[in-house]
Amino acid sequence: MKKIALFVALAATLCACNDYPEVESSVPYTVKNGTIVLETPAREAGQQSALGMVCDPIDTVRVGFVGLGMRGGDAVRRYTYVEGVKITAICDLLPERVAKANEYLESRGWPKAAEYSGEEGWKQLCENPDVDLVYVCTPWLLHTPVSLYAMNHGKHVACEVPSMMNVKDCWDIINTCEKTRKHFMMLENCCYDFYELTALNMAQQGLFGEVYHVEGAYIHNLDPFWDAYQGNWRLDYNQKWRGDNYPTHGIGPVCQVLGIHRGDKMNTLVAMDTKSIHGAEVAKAKMGTDEFADGDHTVSLIRTELGHQIEIQHNVYAARPYSRMYQLTGTKGFANKYPRPEFAVGEDPEEFVTREAFDSLMQAYKHPIIAEYETKAKEVGGHGGMDYIMDSRLIYCLRNGLPLDQDVYDAAEWCCVNELSRISINAGCVPVQVPDFTRGDWNKIQGYTHATK
Amino acid sequence: MKKIALFVALAATLCACNDYPEVESSVPYTVKNGTIVLETPAREAGQQSALGMVCDPIDTVRVGFVGLGMRGGDAVRRYTYVEGVKITAICDLLPERVAKANEYLESRGWPKAAEYSGEEGWKQLCENPDVDLVYVCTPWLLHTPVSLYAMNHGKHVACEVPSMMNVKDCWDIINTCEKTRKHFMMLENCCYDFYELTALNMAQQGLFGEVYHVEGAYIHNLDPFWDAYQGNWRLDYNQKWRGDNYPTHGIGPVCQVLGIHRGDKMNTLVAMDTKSIHGAEVAKAKMGTDEFADGDHTVSLIRTELGHQIEIQHNVYAARPYSRMYQLTGTKGFANKYPRPEFAVGEDPEEFVTREAFDSLMQAYKHPIIAEYETKAKEVGGHGGMDYIMDSRLIYCLRNGLPLDQDVYDAAEWCCVNELSRISINAGCVPVQVPDFTRGDWNKIQGYTHATK
Repeated sequence: MKKIALFVALAATLCACNDYPEVESSVPYTVKNGTIVLETPAREAGQQSALGMVCDPIDTVRVGFVGLGMRGGDAVRRYTYVEGVKITAICDLLPERVAKANEYLESRGWPKAAEYSGEEGWKQLCENPDVDLVYVCTPWLLHTPVSLYAMNHGKHVACEVPSMMNVKDCWDIINTCEKTRKHFMMLENCCYDFYELTALNMAQQGLFGEVYHVEGAYIHNLDPFWDAYQGNWRLDYNQKWRGDNYPTHGIGPVCQVLGIHRGDKMNTLVAMDTKSIHGAEVAKAKMGTDEFADGDHTVSLIRTELGHQIEIQHNVYAARPYSRMYQLTGTKGFANKYPRPEFAVGEDPEEFVTREAFDSLMQAYKHPIIAEYETKAKEVGGHGGMDYIMDSRLIYCLRNGLPLDQDVYDAAEWCCVNELSRISINAGCVPVQVPDFTRGDWNKIQGYTHATK
Repeated sequence: MKKIALFVALAATLCACNDYPEVESSVPYTVKNGTIVLETPAREAGQQSALGMVCDPIDTVRVGFVGLGMRGGDAVRRYTYVEGVKITAICDLLPERVAKANEYLESRGWPKAAEYSGEEGWKQLCENPDVDLVYVCTPWLLHTPVSLYAMNHGKHVACEVPSMMNVKDCWDIINTCEKTRKHFMMLENCCYDFYELTALNMAQQGLFGEVYHVEGAYIHNLDPFWDAYQGNWRLDYNQKWRGDNYPTHGIGPVCQVLGIHRGDKMNTLVAMDTKSIHGAEVAKAKMGTDEFADGDHTVSLIRTELGHQIEIQHNVYAARPYSRMYQLTGTKGFANKYPRPEFAVGEDPEEFVTREAFDSLMQAYKHPIIAEYETKAKEVGGHGGMDYIMDSRLIYCLRNGLPLDQDVYDAAEWCCVNELSRISINAGCVPVQVPDFTRGDWNKIQGYTHATK
């Protein structure tokens, strides 16, 4: 295994068993019955669970955006179409991006937002008293630091995926959320895609029976995009870090179906990758390096407390069609989104339904959230409309003092696959126990819901 | 984990590490660096590798069939259409099946075959000097005993899938093949399906580039079939044994693409299953038991010496469409058979080719074996023709003194997933080293080929 440069503090403890591989991890671990078990920190005095957490309603949500590149620039645009918001602050490393965003706001007849730029502009934005919600669209490695700083300065946080890059980040965000009582929502937009929301609704109405095997993925050839990441941050990350570095689009929607920390929890993860082939070629060409940590294709398997199973794949190097897989296998039916969205339900689940029946199901089981937002979502766009639905739900919940659609534990559960897959693979595909980020509360709520008034 | 009744002799050694789960296995094992390593027996004096083994040509192959139920009955029918064979002996537990098969032979104008029946009829058939090839279509647990007895009585063997039920069976068959110098071929018919053979040909001609992630499966709701297995043997097996009990249709064709023991070898396997849901329901109804070992859905991951990856799924309980997955991901292209056969190759591998282009590829890269046999194969049938192609190839190779398409090491490699997945799962999804059944010869041949004159 390659030695790679480390740029975060790492802690590792030796296996109690002397015939067991030792690996780097962001929090200490022990080995129990052949499984790597990461330490769960105790809650500090006065710190309480954030499960179902609600905050005071905010009539008009004042939003500050950090990072105005690929995702953030479009987010500013979309938010000018969301009801009940003011855009009060914008920040980017590059002042020209900030100026451009303000020009856009003016062109839409909106007041200019306070401008921040440079390496530490985000700190000033987080300190601005005219901001209720910090919306984080920075490179990955800034997600956690900005989010922590924002919550510690009294702001709610919405943060792009993946919000946490390792298990230490997960605990830092959770502990800060639990202490400050500020919302933390990861912006997992694929949870708002039309097929996924319809399938979730069908699952909750029992059309698939007991759903016991689910699949998700991020398979997307990023060759056309590598140069678009400021300072090469994304390729640089993958060059240094092995494992599924981008799990949330795949795992988020299927965890909602399984009701993770809402009656079930993830127990055991094992992962396996291929060697790096095309990733190494790209890094050689763009970075001049012969080393590349991330395998071209990574598969992670997770078993849950209820004996269900999640499979997650990652491949951002493949010369093949895009896929997030999104597959549900249940005792009564089957959903499969790629390469073509299909359902196999009803009297003969061994056959996919006809296209006419498929269209009827998409109408009959349209999720209430889609019904409410779809017309405007398709106008405003953003990944076909799902981004706008996500934005609208976030603001709706904040304005009405409701729990958010994705809580801080969702974010941690979906993001931890990154480091847990790396640990598993680096140790030779050994099982790793998935931390219970709720610290015992995973069974207090039964089933996933979107809160409404 | 459930305690299950054991009906074969099992040996297990303790992990050297006292903090590691202990599991049952058919051969002794140790734990090295957290990985379970099964013992490889040494070759006995005079015993030699069977890699590339050839035997004297047989002008007319005299075939004896053991087991005339689901698969064997149709095999007798198909063989009346194969050139260069005599059907000299037939055997089944039930004499009425034997009589019926001979009636069929007579109806086709063929001479009657010698008849054997009862619990030990297969031994008499194997002792019959008028038999060159014993064709084994018994219930799973008889595959290895009949095959061993046949080789030890000087017969070549063709045996249905899975030919071996555990790693001890694998070594017994290999050692007997290496000692007796008689052919052993597993009848993995999916290696002869039209799409799979075309994709193999495309892969070997470089259309997918370096193929590094492959998938295969057996996903087939057996509810309509459980009662067709004599004495309930198949459900009974799954009731007692956890893991992927039927891996060969999924793994066979993709191993040929990867060139397993022909320049690459399988190194590490990890597996994970779901709990049993529908399997348990079926067993409760048909067997009156509350215990069921086999999980509804089982996923196995295998990493190879070259850093490639195989994923295999098993589910014979699901209310969903049939699938063997069959997916190839390469550096230049992609093949995906289910739910609809597709290719993504050429200038834009991020899009599947059109139906017209797909049909052109199926013609342009038609495998020579398909070209030779397809017209007659479609007439004779047997899973759409692939069974007849398999039969014809086996007899062609025996008649011409050529190495068979599937050697004894293929059979062991494909079948061992059964026990290795069970060991991995029972120990908590730990990694298991895949035995090198060639005992060091995996890199002597480069790439898979079908032998021809």
